[in-house]
Amino acid sequence: MSLGEFDVISRFFTRPPSFQHSAVHVGVGDDCALLSVSPGHVLTTSMDLLVAGRHFFPDVNPKHLGHKALAVNLSDLAACGAKPLAFLLGISLPRVDQTWLSEFSAGLFALADQHGCVLMGGDTTACDGPVTISITVFGEVPVNRALLRSGARVGDGIYVSGQLGDARLALEHRLGKLTLPPTALQAALPSLELPIPRISLGIALRGIASACIDLSDGLYGDLQHVLAASRCGADLFQTSVLSCSGVQSLLPADFSSSYLLQTVSSGGDDYELLFTAPDVHSHAIQAIAARLDTDLHRIGRITESPGIRMLDEQGVPLQVLCASFDHFSASS
Amino acid sequence: MSLGEFDVISRFFTRPPSFQHSAVHVGVGDDCALLSVSPGHVLTTSMDLLVAGRHFFPDVNPKHLGHKALAVNLSDLAACGAKPLAFLLGISLPRVDQTWLSEFSAGLFALADQHGCVLMGGDTTACDGPVTISITVFGEVPVNRALLRSGARVGDGIYVSGQLGDARLALEHRLGKLTLPPTALQAALPSLELPIPRISLGIALRGIASACIDLSDGLYGDLQHVLAASRCGADLFQTSVLSCSGVQSLLPADFSSSYLLQTVSSGGDDYELLFTAPDVHSHAIQAIAARLDTDLHRIGRITESPGIRMLDEQGVPLQVLCASFDHFSASS
Repeated sequence: MSLGEFDVISRFFTRPPSFQHSAVHVGVGDDCALLSVSPGHVLTTSMDLLVAGRHFFPDVNPKHLGHKALAVNLSDLAACGAKPLAFLLGISLPRVDQTWLSEFSAGLFALADQHGCVLMGGDTTACDGPVTISITVFGEVPVNRALLRSGARVGDGIYVSGQLGDARLALEHRLGKLTLPPTALQAALPSLELPIPRISLGIALRGIASACIDLSDGLYGDLQHVLAASRCGADLFQTSVLSCSGVQSLLPADFSSSYLLQTVSSGGDDYELLFTAPDVHSHAIQAIAARLDTDLHRIGRITESPGIRMLDEQGVPLQVLCASFDHFSASS
Repeated sequence: MSLGEFDVISRFFTRPPSFQHSAVHVGVGDDCALLSVSPGHVLTTSMDLLVAGRHFFPDVNPKHLGHKALAVNLSDLAACGAKPLAFLLGISLPRVDQTWLSEFSAGLFALADQHGCVLMGGDTTACDGPVTISITVFGEVPVNRALLRSGARVGDGIYVSGQLGDARLALEHRLGKLTLPPTALQAALPSLELPIPRISLGIALRGIASACIDLSDGLYGDLQHVLAASRCGADLFQTSVLSCSGVQSLLPADFSSSYLLQTVSSGGDDYELLFTAPDVHSHAIQAIAARLDTDLHRIGRITESPGIRMLDEQGVPLQVLCASFDHFSASS
């Protein structure tokens, strides 16, 4: 059975009126969507493209893909301390597979509903290439309260949320480049397929974090963006960085610690927040971690001296590879 | 020479500060773009996907493609009577061709600058498939002044701007399905490759048009969206519809008039505005046409009786094919 473009939209991406949002006046079905931004707020918006075979396995569970496609976008809102409002979905499909679309939309809407984020329009098209998903998210943040990359100051602590490197380990396993023990794989896979956008954390960090970014390209690469925007450098503490691995204790005793460090520091696809904050806020940060039941690791400190140094327990700089993930030079 | 993702963004899609917009606080390079909406206004937004081989010829002039990719999105703003503010660009490329990117961005920015529409972010990625372009545009319109599809009332006149069907004739020529005389091709090609988004017209129609839509899927298909949203029908006047063809006088004397009518009424890719308005505004509409130096054709009338009827000069309904363009059932 073949479905037309408008059938795809009405069958899989149109929802009953109860899922409407007071800020969205006209949603799916008019030329534009109309969105109200609260007085005293600015709109925050971001777009991500996901291409099959590049950002996800073509045979990935479509429910997980629906989740992740929105999660990586919500993660950008989180990094700005924004509250989600709505999103637009563009999807280009080589064929209409109703089971796949139904699962994809279930995963997408489950996450959207968690965050009160309404689908308000988009575009659906056929293509002769890989499935391509383009999502634009819309959120709002009070004027002058957005978390930016440019506010890190010398002496600030550097923090990351949750687990780093697990997504990369799961990816390497799926690519056949290593074999994780079943318990480690089971623990790592959700980081790859079902990342949690740190929306509540981003909002809690307004007025506390001096700079913030979400980790999509890996700790090193994304920290470099913060350092470049803030014109400073960073010392990282190797032990603290390694402790961000969620699955470290589940790995074989002979698992290479330098390889583990590399996945944690350059793995990419973590969708955790990296933020900086002056020490005066360290108690507030501990309180946020407890209230949100989210690990917040203090992994380093902002320095005047440019570049990133990884320090051992004695504070001695290590020689480590400092690479980031770039979609045009890596294909994982 | 190979360029990374961030190099592509900085080389081809980053502009000097003079191209910034007072409403855009943080643009390309942070996790989110921040956009202010004027007090008393709502945000209007729309997304379109363009896929090589589906929406454009892979060998199309990249400058024209840059223009058209933004134009089709601006056309959605025009249909709502919105003023453009900014856009996000997602582009997925099988390879980095610097000449192509340079031309593409020149065409894109030339049109963006005409409308004060600022590139404020996006995403760039490699892919193993066709070039895919995803643009999300942002505009604003005063509260309760947006033109919607749902406001057409029985007795309203039906109007279209500019030329219809020319884009389709140029497409059929490019596909080798017919051969246009050189003068006709030259006149028709700009409609296909360099459509003009009717931004000034949309703004001028605030408070005058009762409903509005942009013509992307063809007159019949898009008029049907208005009729469905407004719960009414339409009589169209064949002679007036045919007069919307810009190249009719340049076609051979034996060119099939029924084929011409079909391209005008179902061709798609016109990116003109279709709007309805009560007769009380007919003088105002003539004045707008004169002021903007834009043809505005009165092609029919809204009826209580549902469906679309094409009437001959005696007002007798004709038997004509009533088809719209659907990206999943047509491949042109």
